[in-house]
Amino acid sequence: MTVIDIIEKKKIGKELTKEEIYFFVNGFTYGTIPDYQMSALLMAILLNGMTDRETFDMTEAMLRSGDVVDMSALGGTVVDKHSTGGIGDSTTLALAPILACCGVYVAKMSGRGLGFTGGTIDKLESIPGFDTALSESEFFDVVKRVGCAVIGQTANLAPADKKIYALRDVTGTVNSIPLICASIMSKKLASGSDTILLDVKYGSGAFMPDPQSALELASKMVAIGTIAGKRIGALITDMQQPLSDHVGNSLEIIGIVDVLRGKKNRLYYEIREVALRLLALTGKYTLATAEEAFQNAIDSGKALAKFAEMVEAQHGDPDYILHPELFEIGAQELVVAEKDGYVTAMVAADIGRAVTYLGGGRMTKSDVIDFSVGVIMHVAIGDKVRKGDVLCEVFHNDGRGLQEAKRLIRNAITLGDEKPAEHKIAYAYVGKDGVELY
Amino acid sequence: MTVIDIIEKKKIGKELTKEEIYFFVNGFTYGTIPDYQMSALLMAILLNGMTDRETFDMTEAMLRSGDVVDMSALGGTVVDKHSTGGIGDSTTLALAPILACCGVYVAKMSGRGLGFTGGTIDKLESIPGFDTALSESEFFDVVKRVGCAVIGQTANLAPADKKIYALRDVTGTVNSIPLICASIMSKKLASGSDTILLDVKYGSGAFMPDPQSALELASKMVAIGTIAGKRIGALITDMQQPLSDHVGNSLEIIGIVDVLRGKKNRLYYEIREVALRLLALTGKYTLATAEEAFQNAIDSGKALAKFAEMVEAQHGDPDYILHPELFEIGAQELVVAEKDGYVTAMVAADIGRAVTYLGGGRMTKSDVIDFSVGVIMHVAIGDKVRKGDVLCEVFHNDGRGLQEAKRLIRNAITLGDEKPAEHKIAYAYVGKDGVELY
Repeated sequence: MTVIDIIEKKKIGKELTKEEIYFFVNGFTYGTIPDYQMSALLMAILLNGMTDRETFDMTEAMLRSGDVVDMSALGGTVVDKHSTGGIGDSTTLALAPILACCGVYVAKMSGRGLGFTGGTIDKLESIPGFDTALSESEFFDVVKRVGCAVIGQTANLAPADKKIYALRDVTGTVNSIPLICASIMSKKLASGSDTILLDVKYGSGAFMPDPQSALELASKMVAIGTIAGKRIGALITDMQQPLSDHVGNSLEIIGIVDVLRGKKNRLYYEIREVALRLLALTGKYTLATAEEAFQNAIDSGKALAKFAEMVEAQHGDPDYILHPELFEIGAQELVVAEKDGYVTAMVAADIGRAVTYLGGGRMTKSDVIDFSVGVIMHVAIGDKVRKGDVLCEVFHNDGRGLQEAKRLIRNAITLGDEKPAEHKIAYAYVGKDGVELY
Repeated sequence: MTVIDIIEKKKIGKELTKEEIYFFVNGFTYGTIPDYQMSALLMAILLNGMTDRETFDMTEAMLRSGDVVDMSALGGTVVDKHSTGGIGDSTTLALAPILACCGVYVAKMSGRGLGFTGGTIDKLESIPGFDTALSESEFFDVVKRVGCAVIGQTANLAPADKKIYALRDVTGTVNSIPLICASIMSKKLASGSDTILLDVKYGSGAFMPDPQSALELASKMVAIGTIAGKRIGALITDMQQPLSDHVGNSLEIIGIVDVLRGKKNRLYYEIREVALRLLALTGKYTLATAEEAFQNAIDSGKALAKFAEMVEAQHGDPDYILHPELFEIGAQELVVAEKDGYVTAMVAADIGRAVTYLGGGRMTKSDVIDFSVGVIMHVAIGDKVRKGDVLCEVFHNDGRGLQEAKRLIRNAITLGDEKPAEHKIAYAYVGKDGVELY
């Protein structure tokens, strides 16, 4: 078997065998297959596709390239959720304590952000003292004791994915559904949860441009997870505007505390939808009993207390959760409407870019994030505004990136004369038995 | 402009601009674009194709990466022919002196063989003393004085092609019609002839498997050559069996001398077809007057004398042309028919491989060729044989590769009960105005 034979086969659209897939994944990871052959093969995969069987084998080959976490010692249901990423997506921070209050374990390994705003790990690190690099035994101990913990991804989780992704990033081979699927699922399956809810976003702030392509990716991932023996489902959700009205690092923690205190905004409804679907997936709840448990966790104040408890267990200062006004926030400037009208569209990615200009995100891996900057949106798609109304508060440090950020935000928000159609939070749910449209 | 933008564009099947094509050809040639990006782009080109305009721009960018030979000082018509390669294809060796006798210049730069049997340059070097590395001025001097000369390709002819071809060879991106076209035509246009006849072969001993794909490649090359202002045409010819009954290095020189002495075999008819088309292309001949001139060159003995004259001018011993029995040939063994029947098919490539096993071709660039070995075929497709009849003589040195060669040849020749349909030498001619089927 040679890699050229494998390239030739995929080039004419034939299905690769399991042995061929392990051969190229391992060969590339261990350096016996050079970059230039792997990139030709990745382009052939992108253009000719992969069957579910091939995608599963590629996922498995990648997950087996590193450590596989074993959570069986916890002796309970371990749930995980994965979002394909977006602007103001801080759902994990609320879901972890809420789900822990509902009696399931959340042992979450998250990534850092690159590109727009920070990642979940960056947001948590804006809480003084918070440790995202617990040892494996301490991580398990916190999960067992508190019910939830969130740490950064360990280095040896699917190293094949890390190496393949770096090559895809510079060879135009990112937007392939089987390759995206194998990349996400190899890490999800390696992190050892038994129940997984995928949140696949579409729109101007997401990876997938429209609901149809998001649905295609979600269906493939659910198929792969099901073959791997997981309880798995996927929500297709809207990312045509920032999910949270708070975008930034400390600001998103503040926004999450609002939700845990019961504020019913878009972020709240999305968190509820993910929580209900995930709890129903475990088999311990129906959607109706899950809704009751969710409501109780929020209304009783137990979810907020659980968040503070997790922060403390991970060496952070819980006072910042109970009194979020402690967070230092940058100086405020306002962006106001220049005319009357309805908010008809937003370029969510540009609001993320604005926060990066302010210092709240990374352009390169080595950039240091400024936790204090960001934006608070005052409007959403469909809102009516009058000339002079505040569209958005911008928080900056000494004016860094301020003009560029304001310009980006102003251009990102379209004001029109006609009220646009309502934007639903979710477009569809994909379970192992099929698709349910909202 | 970045190479990733160019990959993204070709990936979705869009047409690249001239600037984009020069950017990646030059960037790769001069090392600013790495192998792994170029191979992803080549795979996208292979799978999504290129328009004639893109192919022309790529050809031109590649030819401009090195020297362009200027033949205008010769002050006459300079013709060239290019064969896509096959087994026993020694046509150049007869065409050069025949065409010189017809009053046109042949200034030919040829390649060495890699894979099956030797190349034209290897065959000529089997003549003692023959120099295939004349200086540019001596080369021009021989052409001017004798009318024809054949040397090896100079190092700086389309260096971009050399580098791109080496990458294609190891990334499964060889069989792309626009890429093959740009590779061949960049070298043809750089070598400065004004009239070009392409001999595009199909069948078991050729690059292109069937007449249709050969026709597609030929049409593309004729279009590119026409845009470049050349008088150009292409013959689509059969390579389902060795072209010459003599396959080897010295053996093919002997076979060519037979043709120049008037022996009317498949090789003779193919040489005549190429010569007539090429002479007609120059505008100095019609097909009818060309046939007369061709016949006269052979029948008068002038073509054979011209071949000897060219050999002498290139420091070779002309006695070997006038008395080919001077060539040292290996020991003879016979392959005989094991049953009665018709020759219904041949795997021409395996007859080439057999000669390589005997030592007559190269497996790697550094292999030294044994000029004395090879085969003389006694049968062609359609011939009737009886059990025990000689199918082929094999010439070897001390038994090197002999058993493997005999096994390959025996398996390469299929004997059946029914007489197969006649195999025409040419399938079609492609001129700038269209296709003419034979």
